[in-house]
Amino acid sequence: MAETVGLIGLGSMGLSMAHNLLNKGFALRVYNRTPDKASELIARGAQEAATPAAAAAPGGIVISMVANDAALETVTLGDQGVATALGSGGIHVSMSTVSPQLARRLADAHREHGSHYLAAPVLGRPAAAAAGKLFILLSGPAAAKQRAMPLLMALGQATRDLGDDPTQGHVAKLAANFMILSLVEVYAEVLTFAQKNGIGRQDMMQVLTGTILDAPLFRLYGELLAREDYTTPGFRLALGLKDVELILATGAIARTPIPAADLVHNRLLAAVARDRGELDVTALALGVSEDAGLR
Amino acid sequence: MAETVGLIGLGSMGLSMAHNLLNKGFALRVYNRTPDKASELIARGAQEAATPAAAAAPGGIVISMVANDAALETVTLGDQGVATALGSGGIHVSMSTVSPQLARRLADAHREHGSHYLAAPVLGRPAAAAAGKLFILLSGPAAAKQRAMPLLMALGQATRDLGDDPTQGHVAKLAANFMILSLVEVYAEVLTFAQKNGIGRQDMMQVLTGTILDAPLFRLYGELLAREDYTTPGFRLALGLKDVELILATGAIARTPIPAADLVHNRLLAAVARDRGELDVTALALGVSEDAGLR
Amino acid sequence: MAETVGLIGLGSMGLSMAHNLLNKGFALRVYNRTPDKASELIARGAQEAATPAAAAAPGGIVISMVANDAALETVTLGDQGVATALGSGGIHVSMSTVSPQLARRLADAHREHGSHYLAAPVLGRPAAAAAGKLFILLSGPAAAKQRAMPLLMALGQATRDLGDDPTQGHVAKLAANFMILSLVEVYAEVLTFAQKNGIGRQDMMQVLTGTILDAPLFRLYGELLAREDYTTPGFRLALGLKDVELILATGAIARTPIPAADLVHNRLLAAVARDRGELDVTALALGVSEDAGLR
Amino acid sequence: MAETVGLIGLGSMGLSMAHNLLNKGFALRVYNRTPDKASELIARGAQEAATPAAAAAPGGIVISMVANDAALETVTLGDQGVATALGSGGIHVSMSTVSPQLARRLADAHREHGSHYLAAPVLGRPAAAAAGKLFILLSGPAAAKQRAMPLLMALGQATRDLGDDPTQGHVAKLAANFMILSLVEVYAEVLTFAQKNGIGRQDMMQVLTGTILDAPLFRLYGELLAREDYTTPGFRLALGLKDVELILATGAIARTPIPAADLVHNRLLAAVARDRGELDVTALALGVSEDAGLR
Repeated sequence: MAETVGLIGLGSMGLSMAHNLLNKGFALRVYNRTPDKASELIARGAQEAATPAAAAAPGGIVISMVANDAALETVTLGDQGVATALGSGGIHVSMSTVSPQLARRLADAHREHGSHYLAAPVLGRPAAAAAGKLFILLSGPAAAKQRAMPLLMALGQATRDLGDDPTQGHVAKLAANFMILSLVEVYAEVLTFAQKNGIGRQDMMQVLTGTILDAPLFRLYGELLAREDYTTPGFRLALGLKDVELILATGAIARTPIPAADLVHNRLLAAVARDRGELDVTALALGVSEDAGLR
Repeated sequence: MAETVGLIGLGSMGLSMAHNLLNKGFALRVYNRTPDKASELIARGAQEAATPAAAAAPGGIVISMVANDAALETVTLGDQGVATALGSGGIHVSMSTVSPQLARRLADAHREHGSHYLAAPVLGRPAAAAAGKLFILLSGPAAAKQRAMPLLMALGQATRDLGDDPTQGHVAKLAANFMILSLVEVYAEVLTFAQKNGIGRQDMMQVLTGTILDAPLFRLYGELLAREDYTTPGFRLALGLKDVELILATGAIARTPIPAADLVHNRLLAAVARDRGELDVTALALGVSEDAGLR
Repeated sequence: MAETVGLIGLGSMGLSMAHNLLNKGFALRVYNRTPDKASELIARGAQEAATPAAAAAPGGIVISMVANDAALETVTLGDQGVATALGSGGIHVSMSTVSPQLARRLADAHREHGSHYLAAPVLGRPAAAAAGKLFILLSGPAAAKQRAMPLLMALGQATRDLGDDPTQGHVAKLAANFMILSLVEVYAEVLTFAQKNGIGRQDMMQVLTGTILDAPLFRLYGELLAREDYTTPGFRLALGLKDVELILATGAIARTPIPAADLVHNRLLAAVARDRGELDVTALALGVSEDAGLR
Repeated sequence: MAETVGLIGLGSMGLSMAHNLLNKGFALRVYNRTPDKASELIARGAQEAATPAAAAAPGGIVISMVANDAALETVTLGDQGVATALGSGGIHVSMSTVSPQLARRLADAHREHGSHYLAAPVLGRPAAAAAGKLFILLSGPAAAKQRAMPLLMALGQATRDLGDDPTQGHVAKLAANFMILSLVEVYAEVLTFAQKNGIGRQDMMQVLTGTILDAPLFRLYGELLAREDYTTPGFRLALGLKDVELILATGAIARTPIPAADLVHNRLLAAVARDRGELDVTALALGVSEDAGLR
């Protein structure tokens, strides 16, 4: 039987991953800042950990999937963080979307304790997580990758190896989210352009996905945007704003102007200012439509 | 045997289409503003027409694939234009990327002569045209669509029917090019973002096309952008600029802000101002890289 | 006594200019597309002209102040246009904000009739026009400038000579409006930035105009933007949109990316799409505030 | 005689202020991270302080004018910082351009030590600092303002009182710099637009400053931009980049999209990526010109 794995963070992604791991026979120790999220997992046999440290076994593997840099820093380096608890030989599989800068610091901190930081952020929405269909963008020490591989294979349909540097998996994840968020903006503009010139959003979406854009990502976002369904939060808009802020900060540090990201940033800022942060990230399309005098 | 078809405009797209039609057994009368482009087709049995009108037979079918609104207006309504020559029952299959406004005017003019204007702009680069793999965005009178269908099926792998209104095929084409051009900009920004943060352009491209962006369009543009190959003109940058100007004009008439198109517009304007108009449209990525201090 | 002058176009600017000219003793023949605008001027002694041509005397001076390129082309080159009526030695003082391209064509047309086109667009809102306080941006033939100078001095507080080329006065006017419209956008963003961070709009405006921005233009627009008074149309928003479209077209022809103008363009497009075209151009600030979740 | 004042930070602004204070009879204790900057002041009678703390006398007044948040935090809260040294009744006159967030934290820290934080950032370039012609944007405790006023009056031509909140002076400063930096961008675009359409930069600048933009700020930047003089660093471009990053961060925290600031940000990022960080901030115009194919 597979070893017991710690899992920290039971948001929509973490919870979907936890169910998938239980389905595949892994034993879990789970921790969440607000404990009630754990109940359905405990009912399925997971152990509850009272602190991040309690989710980690000395020399074991612990996965984190939390909301942002601050949360990851707390669960790793805080008083009850995993960095000390993992101890020699442990592995921290860090799957959140966080800054490369924080990854660097955490990798250094783990190394001091003899444990390993493995960047392993994922591509996929909660449904993909539940189905074990995530893509995992991996970077870190080779031995840690090898040992974590069975676990990763349970979580994802494939991994992409970005080398040894603990920041590179996170850079790739930010680049991918930059691509996705920009596509949502562009797609929303294209559908609104069509709509205002007499072609229905559904018709235009079908033209595109039936010809040049025959890819799952485009079908997924195209369906949502075409029928203006913004209330099923798969990728919460407020989290999208956090991501684009990481993208812009990472771009600025590297002296790289990325105006398409500014466009998305302003659209998401305006959406949050209008209390739309809990909607799906596709709800940035509301601003596109409103600027065209629609709705 | 199929009827003899007129073909006006032997740029890289028109020429590729002509070879494909000859391959499939169509007889052609071809016209180009500068005649030397026709020689290789004449060697294969096509007849040369001295004027646009001479490419059209009364009641016949003539295809146009020209550079811009002005050229299409000249070959249609000019002294030797096809509008008069086609006469009663003729069909003008208009495959260029032109403004919906011009399409409206030409459709009205054809109607006065008893002929039909069929909007049939295409998605695909010259290689797709040569292979008969274009997608054709069709709108216009139902009877004209039906009669032109065998010809269209020779040119494209599929048609999408946008209804009776002669503008709608062109709106859909502009919307699709808006999507494509914006994706090139976004893709170039994403690759530059990755490159400046330590991930090679090829590696980043493979991460994306191997996961969320597994679509032909992304493979095609991803390959070009990743290896910074901007000298094989499949979609000439200066034509891309013309397209985005049509897109912005059509957006403005419909009171639709499309800031992603402005981004592309400025990138293409700057490229032309730097004498890059003859490169492929992917060369807008040069500006993205230069703004990041690369190259 | 000064010669009788023709005046075509009685919008808010033209009407203010007409009253000012009457005040200063000029005799006027006035024409407006919708005649009722002329009644208050006729009551003061102006003659009414039934057509643009009737406002022009052979060899005389006629001023035009109309809404856009199409209107100026009609009153100049239309069946009852001034080009023919002015005849040899006449002067068309063209004060509208129009494209340099049209100015070139009209100058050529006037030259064929032996008359002169004088580019003389103005800086200033209607209040400045009524007070004779406009600035006039002048270009065209030297002799025409000299003959028109007494009239121009009655209309404006100063002229700026941009040389012989009939397009240059219009280029300068577009450049100035580009500056003004961009300043309104920037000013609106700055005030909203301050407001959302705890400093009232009035307070912030006073800090700026009391320090670095002690200029009439900033006081004027600052007052309006600070108290969010967008209903007194001095520079109608729909006309501002027309101007920025001319600016962008002129920039595009010269291969000059001007992203600040795109920003204003999108703001004005969105305002018109929301039925705000009749408000003052400062109403673009509504979009700035709404994007920040205010109002 | 006035009390001895501490002055921390001898960059171009701090040094100019120091000379001005010596001219006006103030005794100074000066500290700079790299000591050689102090020599010309010591030659004029200033005392040199080996640490920030040594520049502060218990209950006295110390001015700081440093490069960024990190530097201000170090000289205030670091081991040898002024917070402890000032002690009960002391005043920290904080004149740097820093984030409102840091100002809040420093004000709290000072309060714990019984001293006062006075936000007093300035408008003006080094020449204005040397001439005592700065504008000072003041916020903080009323008693501290009153006691510091003679000193402030020596440094500036006027103060603007933004109330008690220690963040508001800094918000106003960021808003003013947002305005200035955006104006430089807009002005550069306007001059390039004119230049590419046939009007010289000098001519266009004179048209604007002679009419609607008759304000010192516009004359200053207009002169520099018109003659393309970017090598006299009055406001170093790299510092401008830091400022716009503070502006964008402050906007994002308040959920306020400010796209004009993004435009400037990208222009400055690109300039630094091309090694132009040591030029004056007006050098952002190089990017504007290059995008138009000039230079």
